[in-house]
Amino acid sequence: MSLIDDLKWRYATKKYDPTKKVSQEDVDKIIEAARLAPTSSGLQQFRVLVVSNQDIKEKLAPSSLNPEVMVDCSHVLVFAAWDRYTAERIDTIYDRITDERDLPRGRFGSYTDKIKNLYLNETAEENFVHTARQSYIAFAMAIAQAAELKVDSTPAEGFNNALVDELLNLKQKGLKSVTLLYLGYRDENDWLASMKKVRNPVEEFVIEYK
Amino acid sequence: MSLIDDLKWRYATKKYDPTKKVSQEDVDKIIEAARLAPTSSGLQQFRVLVVSNQDIKEKLAPSSLNPEVMVDCSHVLVFAAWDRYTAERIDTIYDRITDERDLPRGRFGSYTDKIKNLYLNETAEENFVHTARQSYIAFAMAIAQAAELKVDSTPAEGFNNALVDELLNLKQKGLKSVTLLYLGYRDENDWLASMKKVRNPVEEFVIEYK
Repeated sequence: MSLIDDLKWRYATKKYDPTKKVSQEDVDKIIEAARLAPTSSGLQQFRVLVVSNQDIKEKLAPSSLNPEVMVDCSHVLVFAAWDRYTAERIDTIYDRITDERDLPRGRFGSYTDKIKNLYLNETAEENFVHTARQSYIAFAMAIAQAAELKVDSTPAEGFNNALVDELLNLKQKGLKSVTLLYLGYRDENDWLASMKKVRNPVEEFVIEYK
Repeated sequence: MSLIDDLKWRYATKKYDPTKKVSQEDVDKIIEAARLAPTSSGLQQFRVLVVSNQDIKEKLAPSSLNPEVMVDCSHVLVFAAWDRYTAERIDTIYDRITDERDLPRGRFGSYTDKIKNLYLNETAEENFVHTARQSYIAFAMAIAQAAELKVDSTPAEGFNNALVDELLNLKQKGLKSVTLLYLGYRDENDWLASMKKVRNPVEEFVIEYK
C-alpha cells in the first residue's frame, strides 16, 4: 500500500466500537511516525500525551465536541506544543544533537544564537503560533501512520483547550494543547464511513508555473 | 517500505544536484498526497503553487534563506493558505460536498452556520492562524510522499513571505504563503546527508496515561 491509498482509505471516524482496542505495538508505531516528523530547526517543539485510561478519557469527555467519541475510542493522543521558547529548551536540543553526532557542543552556536535572538524577542503568544504549527506536521504523520496500520482515527481541533490543559497539568509541563487524535476502530454504524471523500479538484488545488 | 522507514530515510536536503529533475509523475503524486490530507471541516483552506520554471525560481531566490537551494532544486512547492474565511468560500466547498454525495444543498447548513458564526466573527489575522495550520497537514503529507518516492525535499519556513506573495500575486488570489517545500535530488556533497538524525527519545517525547 502507498501513502495515497492509505489517505484514500482513512476518514474522520465519527463513531467507534468501544470493545476494540488498538494494540500497544500499533500505538508505538503511530507515536514513532510523529517522533520522526521534521520540525523547524529540529526542535520538536511539542509532546504527545497518550491517554488510554478510561477514567481520564471520561474526565476529558466534556472538553470534546464529540464526548461519545472520546469515551468510545481506544486511545486519545493530545498534541501539545511548547508554551514558549527558552534558551534552555533550545540548548538542550542542540546539546543532544552535537553529542549524538560526536561534534563539540556549541558547533551550531551561531545558528542557535540566531534563532534565540528571533524567538526570545517575541511574545509567548507569537512563540506559540510557531510551536503549534510544528505539532501539525507530527499530527499529520500520526494520521498517516494510523491509516497505514488500518487503525481508524479522528483528527480534532474543536475542543476546550483550557479544560484539557488543566486536567493534564499541561501548564506545569510548559505545554499547551493544540490538537487531539482519537484512535480506535470504527463502529459499523458510523454514518460517515460510507460517504464519498470530497476534495477540491486538482486543477483548482494546484497552480503551476512551468 | 513503511512510512517510518521513509521518515528515517528523509532529511532536510541542503544541496541539490541542479541537473536532476523530478518527474511530472512523481510531482503529481506528491500533490495528490497533499490534496488528500484532512483539514478542519474539510475546507482545504490552502492551495499549492508548484514552481519549476527556472526564471521564476531565480526571481524567488532572494526571498529564501538558502537561495542556492531555491535555484538548484527541481521544483518549489509553495503552500499558501486562505487569507481569511468568507461565507462564499465555505458555501462553495459544502455545495461541492453535497453535490458529490448526491445530497440536497444545505444538508449541512446547521454546521456551516456554526462555523461561519465562529470564523466570520474573527479578524483576518485570527482566521489565518487557523487556515495556515491546516496547510501544515498537507505539507507533512507532501514530505512523506516525497520520501516514499525517494525524492529529496527540504521543508522551509524561513523565507520572505511578503516577497513570495508579491511575486506570485498571492494577495489577488486571496492567499498568503506559509511554507515552502523544495523537491529534487541531493548533491553528493551535501554535508547534512551523512549526519545522524537526532530526535527526542521516546520516553521524553511521550507522556502516557494508561
